[in-house]
Parts: sequence; C-alpha cells; structure tokens
Amino acid sequence: MAEFRRIGIISRPSRKTTAESIRRVARLVKKKECELLVDEETARVLETSEGLELPELAEQADLGVIVGGDGTLLRAVRHLAPRNVPVCGVNRGRLGFLADIYPEQIPSVLGAILDGEYEIDQRSILVGEVLRGDEQLCVSDALNDVVIHSYRDLHMIELQTLVSGRPLSSLRADGLIISTPTGSTAYAMSGGGPILHPSLQVLVMVPICPHMLSSRPIVVDLDSEIELEVIGRPESRGVVSFDGAANQELTIGDRIRIRRQDYPLNLIQPKGHDYYEILRRKLSWNL
Amino acid sequence: MAEFRRIGIISRPSRKTTAESIRRVARLVKKKECELLVDEETARVLETSEGLELPELAEQADLGVIVGGDGTLLRAVRHLAPRNVPVCGVNRGRLGFLADIYPEQIPSVLGAILDGEYEIDQRSILVGEVLRGDEQLCVSDALNDVVIHSYRDLHMIELQTLVSGRPLSSLRADGLIISTPTGSTAYAMSGGGPILHPSLQVLVMVPICPHMLSSRPIVVDLDSEIELEVIGRPESRGVVSFDGAANQELTIGDRIRIRRQDYPLNLIQPKGHDYYEILRRKLSWNL
Amino acid sequence: MAEFRRIGIISRPSRKTTAESIRRVARLVKKKECELLVDEETARVLETSEGLELPELAEQADLGVIVGGDGTLLRAVRHLAPRNVPVCGVNRGRLGFLADIYPEQIPSVLGAILDGEYEIDQRSILVGEVLRGDEQLCVSDALNDVVIHSYRDLHMIELQTLVSGRPLSSLRADGLIISTPTGSTAYAMSGGGPILHPSLQVLVMVPICPHMLSSRPIVVDLDSEIELEVIGRPESRGVVSFDGAANQELTIGDRIRIRRQDYPLNLIQPKGHDYYEILRRKLSWNL
Amino acid sequence: MAEFRRIGIISRPSRKTTAESIRRVARLVKKKECELLVDEETARVLETSEGLELPELAEQADLGVIVGGDGTLLRAVRHLAPRNVPVCGVNRGRLGFLADIYPEQIPSVLGAILDGEYEIDQRSILVGEVLRGDEQLCVSDALNDVVIHSYRDLHMIELQTLVSGRPLSSLRADGLIISTPTGSTAYAMSGGGPILHPSLQVLVMVPICPHMLSSRPIVVDLDSEIELEVIGRPESRGVVSFDGAANQELTIGDRIRIRRQDYPLNLIQPKGHDYYEILRRKLSWNL
Repeated sequence: MAEFRRIGIISRPSRKTTAESIRRVARLVKKKECELLVDEETARVLETSEGLELPELAEQADLGVIVGGDGTLLRAVRHLAPRNVPVCGVNRGRLGFLADIYPEQIPSVLGAILDGEYEIDQRSILVGEVLRGDEQLCVSDALNDVVIHSYRDLHMIELQTLVSGRPLSSLRADGLIISTPTGSTAYAMSGGGPILHPSLQVLVMVPICPHMLSSRPIVVDLDSEIELEVIGRPESRGVVSFDGAANQELTIGDRIRIRRQDYPLNLIQPKGHDYYEILRRKLSWNL
Repeated sequence: MAEFRRIGIISRPSRKTTAESIRRVARLVKKKECELLVDEETARVLETSEGLELPELAEQADLGVIVGGDGTLLRAVRHLAPRNVPVCGVNRGRLGFLADIYPEQIPSVLGAILDGEYEIDQRSILVGEVLRGDEQLCVSDALNDVVIHSYRDLHMIELQTLVSGRPLSSLRADGLIISTPTGSTAYAMSGGGPILHPSLQVLVMVPICPHMLSSRPIVVDLDSEIELEVIGRPESRGVVSFDGAANQELTIGDRIRIRRQDYPLNLIQPKGHDYYEILRRKLSWNL
Repeated sequence: MAEFRRIGIISRPSRKTTAESIRRVARLVKKKECELLVDEETARVLETSEGLELPELAEQADLGVIVGGDGTLLRAVRHLAPRNVPVCGVNRGRLGFLADIYPEQIPSVLGAILDGEYEIDQRSILVGEVLRGDEQLCVSDALNDVVIHSYRDLHMIELQTLVSGRPLSSLRADGLIISTPTGSTAYAMSGGGPILHPSLQVLVMVPICPHMLSSRPIVVDLDSEIELEVIGRPESRGVVSFDGAANQELTIGDRIRIRRQDYPLNLIQPKGHDYYEILRRKLSWNL
Repeated sequence: MAEFRRIGIISRPSRKTTAESIRRVARLVKKKECELLVDEETARVLETSEGLELPELAEQADLGVIVGGDGTLLRAVRHLAPRNVPVCGVNRGRLGFLADIYPEQIPSVLGAILDGEYEIDQRSILVGEVLRGDEQLCVSDALNDVVIHSYRDLHMIELQTLVSGRPLSSLRADGLIISTPTGSTAYAMSGGGPILHPSLQVLVMVPICPHMLSSRPIVVDLDSEIELEVIGRPESRGVVSFDGAANQELTIGDRIRIRRQDYPLNLIQPKGHDYYEILRRKLSWNL
C-alpha cells in the first residue's frame, strides 16, 4: 500500500476531548514526518494561522483524518471523495459506524495506518438531483442517504416511485429514505430497514410511517436509476435532504433522480478491521 | 333512546359525490320533520343563506351529521364535543374508521338513527397544553392524537417523558405520538403502534423512528398525566399538532402536558354496529 | 401492612450463586424470627430434610420468596396465587422483570419487606381451557401468556379468533400470543407487541409471523372472553402452552377459551418500587 | 431463444380448477406439436398410463410447466434445476410469486412461450448441509429459504452465526430464516425481512422473534458461506427445513452450512414480465 505524505485534519471541535484528540493526531503526523494540513476549525484549536477551506485542503491532501462524529465525516466526504482523497475517522460521537478509531488508539492504530498498514474499505456514494420541469434545482452526493420528507405540519407526502423507468409504487407516507449500505445502520435503521453489508452493490428504499400497512423496505441494485415524483394534492410540500444536509424544498411535480455516483469513498480501516465486530458493539449485541 | 330534533350538517364538500350525499341527508332530515341546521360550507351546496359558524351550530344542534372523511369529523368534534353534541359520520374518505355510514345507506341507516335506533359509542378525548416557562402557549383537544415532531430539516427531537410525575425515558426520535384508542388505527398505526379497542381507558405512546432500537410503543392508563419536555441541543426545534391541526412550534425547554379531557365524544353508531367488522374491512383482513 | 410470619422459599438452585442467595434468605428469615418453609430443591441446598411439595408449602406459607429467574417464579405462582399467597422474587436470571431484588439487597430490601415495609403490586392472571368437542383437554393459569403455535415442521396454523363472541379474524400465522400486561415484556415483546403498564386491565393478542401483512397486535379488555378455534387443513397440528409450560397438542376443531382468572397474583415490591425504572434498566434505555 | 420440444407437466391436482388447467396445458402442448411428458399425478388427471417419476421426467424434458401453487413449484425445482431444465408456473394458489400465468392465459401466454417468446429470469438457489461432528446428516437445495426453528415446546433456540468464517452474532430467538431474494416475499417477509429484487446476488438472514430487541435482518453477499451452530443448553432441540420440507432435527453442537448452489433456476417468464407489477398485485399496493 502507498504511504500517505500530506495529511489533512478536519474536525468540529465542540468539546474539550476533541481538541485533545486533534493535538494527538497533529503530533503523530509530525512524528511520522508527514506534511500537516488543517481546516479552519482545526487551525483554531492548534493555534496556527494556516487553516484551509475544505475544497483547498481536499486538493492538496492525500489522506483526510476526520476527528469527530459521523456528521463531521459526512460533511468532509463531500469535498474529499470527488477528488479521490481517502478518509479515516477518529471517533468522538456516540454511534460512529464510520469513525471508529478511538482517541486512545491514535498513536498505535493511526500510526500504523500512516506507516502503510491499512485496508481500503470502498463505500458507494449516491448522487441525487432535484428537477422542477426542465430546471435542475440542486444536485448533491450522499454517502448515507437521500431522504424525502413531508414538510412540517403535514403528516404525509405522496410519491410516485420508479426504478429504472418501471413504476414501483405510489407511496403515501411521512417520507422515504433511499439509503446506501453505509447508511443502512443510520437513519434507515430507525425507519425499520435491514442492515446491508457495506460491500454490497445495492440500495434500500425505506418508507417512513407508510399509510399502506403492507409497505416494506425494498432492496434493489445500486445501478438502478431511482426516480421519485411528488404527486397528490397541489398544496403538498416536502423537503429532500442529502446526508441530513443540503435541504431542498419540494412542491408538487418535482422529481428527484438518484443514481450511483461515479466515484466511491475510500475509507481507510486498520488492518484486520471487522465490520461484524463493530456492528455487535454499536448495536449492543454483546450485552 | 332520545330522538334527535335539531340536526346540524357539517361538511367539506370538495367532490361532487359529497354534494349529493349532503342533499340526501338534508332531504332525510326534512322527511323526518327535524329542524335542519347547516354550516357555511354545507349552506353553499344547498344554496341556502342560513349557514352557521361551527360554534353557533354546536350551540343549537342536538346531533351533528358529518359528511366527509375523518379529517372533517375531527375538525367538527372540537366544537361539538365540548357542548356534548353527539356526532354521526357519513363516509366519503378512503379510510374512515369514524365516518362509516356509506352514502347509499343514508335513507335506511341514518333514517333509523333519527328514529331513535342507535348505539352510543363513547370515545375518550385528550387535552394537551404547551407551556413555555409559566406561559401557556396553546391548549387543544385531540380525539385521535397529539403528535410532537422534529422540525423540518432535523431528523431528531429529544424529549424527556414523564408519566404521572415519574420519568419514563429520554427519547431521541423523529417524534412521538400520544394516541387515544380512537387514534390507534390512524397515524399511530403507521408508526408501528398496536390497535386499541375504542372502549379502553388507555393511551399509547408511539415513538417515530427512534434512535434506540429497543424503544417500543407503551400503553398506559388514560388517567395518567403525560409530560414531555423538549431537551437536547439549544437549536432543537419541534412542532406539536393536535389531530393533525393547531400546530404549535416548540423550542428547547417547552413542555407539553397531556391528560384525559373531562368530556368524551358521543359517537352515534347504527344498531348492531361491530367494531371488529370495520377493522377487518379497513385493514383488508378479509382478502 | 400485615407482617409475614411463615416464609416459604422456592428455588431452582442450578448455580452456585443461587445457593448462596438461598442461604442468605434463610438466615434473614431466622433473624427476623419468622417460620421458614422450603420446597424440596431448596431443602437440598440448606441440607435439611424438611422440604415440602409446592401445594403443601402454598397451604402453609403467608409469603413465597422465589430465588431464581422469571421461569422459577412462573412455576411457583401456579401454586401460590390460587391460595392467595403473595410472592416476592430474588433475581438471578438475566431479564427478570418479576424477580427484581438483587442478591446483595437481600438483608436490606427483603429485610424491610419482612418488617412490613412493602407495596402490593397486583397482577392479573389468565386462565385458559382447551376443548375438543365436549371434552376439556386441559385447563391452566398463565401469569405471562397463553401461546398457540404451529407444530414442528409446518410454518403455519390457522385460527379463527373471537372476542366476547364476536369474530375478530381468521389468522394464518406461525402462532398467536395472548399476553397479560405482565407478559407484555416477555415473549409478546419479541413478537412485536407493545409494552402494557402492569396495572392495566387489558390483554394483548400478538400474531407471530402472520401471513397477512396488515395484521397488528390488538389490545382488548381483560374481561373479554377470547375464543380461538383451530381451522384450516385437516392435517394441521398445533400446540398451546401456558407460561411456556403445560403444553397441550392441538388438532383441527380444537378450541381454546381464555378469560381473566378470578384471583390475581399479589407481587410484593419494595417501597418506592418504580416500574419505569426497571423498564429502562431491562431494555437498556439508559445506555 | 431456443424453442422447447419436450414439455413436462408437473402438478398437484387437488382441485377441479387445477384439473381443467392441466388439460388446457396438455391440449396446447399437442397443438404446438411438442412432445408431452407428465408426472404421475398429472397422468391420473389426463387418464394416461404414462406418468413418470420426477427424476425421470427431469431427465427427458426441456421445459417443466408447473400447474399449482408455489409449493408444487418448489418441490419440482429440486429435480429440474440440477438438470438445468427451465421452469414455468401456471398459477392456482393464492400468493404465487413464482407461478404467475393465470389459467385463462394458458393459450395466449404459455402459447407464446412455447413459440420461443419468453424471458429467462435466473434465480439463485441455496444449498445447505447439516453436520453432526464429522457426519453429514443431510444436504438439500432451497430456492426460497433455509429455516432453523426451535423444536415444539421451547420458544427459543440459540445459534452461533458465522459469515465467511467471521462471527456475526449469538442469536437467541424462535428461529432464523436464511432467504434468497426469491424467498424474500415468502416466509422471510412474515418475519419482518425486506423485499430483495430477485436479480440481486445477496441473501438475507431474518431472526424470528429475537430476544435481543436490537436484532435486525441483515443482507450479505450470496457468495458468503453461512455457518450456524446450535449452542446453549444441552437439552436444546431444533429443526431445520429447506423450502418448508426435508426437515432435519437438530441437537446441540450441530452445524448448518449454507452457500450458493452451483446452478440457478431458470424461470421462464412471459415477454415484458414486470416484477414490480406482480409485487404491487400480490401485496395489494394498488388498493
């Protein structure tokens, strides 16, 4: 495996413990004689003036070390994945399926990774675009999920769903989650979706509080093109989010098209990394 | 059983078929030599100028006939139940658990009811108030449910729940449904709640997409006082609705107190009315 | 509250730790100058020759102390409840909703109970009988649940269900759980049933792996009479169990009638006992 | 596409309507000047003496037409799939996802298929073996699912599950379903599993009534090797079935190994066959 030379630290240092983790990572990067790049938030913690904006950092780094929870990682991935920069997560949040190096493991585990001892865990990414007539309202990546939800005070949105051009269903529900395997242990799981092994080339569509009691999550090929159209009453309103961010309001007739993104995320894992072990730990199956 | 003398028709005449049902009910009322009262929307259909506002109609009628779906009935109940006016529903919507006289049954079934042939099906009502510090922001009845939901772009609200002063849980979820037995076949059912026989003196709390996988719906005594407090991050926002209406925005520290309302709804049912038969029909158990 | 004078210990001493708990309880009973009665299994641990059979012990004791898991308690209740002997559980099993005095609390908590410091937590009991034509095949109590299940190699049993004489449904499923509030946190919960507060006068019917996707758990009044008839193909076989024991094989045409038992179980709880606290602990809601 | 020359009819003619369908298929085969082969049950209906046993029929036919429900088809597939004989189903059962040509469509749709107008819908098959120490107790194919279930009166079996040699979980449950995409709309769906598009190269493991509330269905690569070991108490008993048949009793220490079978089933579908349309129809999503 290639060694990493220019290491970018990206963080959301809201707690004291995160600051300490950031400093540990920075010391390790220097000890390994790698070049250190930091985003602006991290620069504040390290008291240097050299903070970079994420696009710039993504251009220069050949590894992104994310210190924080899954939310911080999801935000960073938007900039790093398109430039093919691999990512490695140092855990601080409570349910980190992605960021699973614990702070005390920084010298040993992250150290080994910087020495070239790692595995690449390739994760598929979705890309969705929102169309109103001929106009493209927004386009965004999602490592976890694209979520369409009814807006505020209406407990329902009505969606016509198509898979690769074939009608699947007319869904009346609070919303619909289109999740990657990576996202299957996040919001999709709260909605009753199955766990999908992250290596699978599939996506799952999970209806949220569907009216039809026979609605079920459905798993389809990741190379399917998903198209959703807001139908029903003219006053219907919805919102679509990508990894919980980049919200776009929806009105009747709007279409959301979702397909696999051309590039994956290269997640850097310690050697011997065991997905099932993390699963058992996070879901408390070992109790 | 007492006969009804002054019959109020309340409707939301959005479709041709509803207008025809309204005219049928009006003809029947006159044939039975009862006094006819109508709300403003119904007056428009009947082309009379004597439409009453709901509070006024509720003051004068001794039976409310609701022509429409469950939504129209829920709205009317807010005015009729506090004045102890019984209610009878003529179905037009698709999943009407409450309004279950079909249009073609108007002469026979509604006719028999006006002749005094009916059963009273007493349904418990909840009342909820929203408190911000010492201020009461709103107070409202709910025949179906009180729903607290996260606001728009956040897939989570954090609620501290207490039952009769005892802490039950700290819930992190999309929201929480507090449902009467009547509401148990409405939104609560989409959220995974059980069916509660309408005669039971209980309520059910159904978490919506809870983060904690061991969260479950919980059924408690209707005479419990439920208190919910919005906790968590200062920027958390939520919304509370009563039977899908009367929305009130919530911010951190707001409390929602829910208890049984002093008065019930007296739902007028045809003689021999069978709850389980309706259940089987509505849930397609007969297929 | 009345003090208890004759204390019966009932146990299933399969582990070393249970033996130690039994000896602790015995020492406490003597210290409190109460009379000590033991069942035969307990007698073996205490090395006395005075073990009583359960019916005899139930006749003489005015408190039963159960040392073991919920299974041991369920077995003892069959003998103690009909004779109105209250019961108190010392925990040893892993998920003890009923037996919740921990071994180390024996001197303090059980001591206080023997001094008259306790609360009575009255739990409703079901009684079921199995009828083949006019013949009563068996009759049994259930504190947790009556379970009808398909037999061995068939993944389905077909049941006609009636509630107080009214048809509810024709169920095709692996089985059906009829559970008390006490049983709602046991097997019924694995089947997707709601939590029922133990004070409620209700029961819940939970279908196990139903074919009909719109099947849902249904909560009805505890004073309903439930009747289930095995219908379908002549070769259909099933089995009914009461609290997981007393199995009776079923064939087509067999009927199971379930109603509330005349007597409850008086569960003795420490003062200040909090059901919700136990719930949170057992379901790991505090993690 | 190749035309079919020797057509084998396999049926379970329990009803009058099936007999009529069988005769229709036989007439069509002759009209198309194909050779007609029949199994013994079909021979009885057609009143010929030339009924073949399934292995013999499978040796000679180049298309199997199954007249009956999914159960009849599953039984036939055991003989046809290993010899690479494609299969086509004429529906008679109630929820036939596999056998979806309706009797009245026999002349048109089956006629077109015999003329070479069809699509091949390749379905993956599992093969499982049961091992006791070094002894292989049984080995069997499954088009739908391999199901391990507790035996009779015990509501629990304990299974150690491994995926490709890595421990996944220690499951305590009524049982475990290992389902193909084809089986995902059968028993696995009653157990709460997701719908898997039949083209996917995955399998799903669905726990039945698991004790651990955080247990979830998990979807893994079809080329994984699944190994399950019966663990727990020495008296534990279970049973394993393959497509609901070929039951093998299990005792502690027994291992079940499941992997993808080398050959698939070639299901013959009418041109323009639409999986989602069948899904909507079978799950009543069109109501």
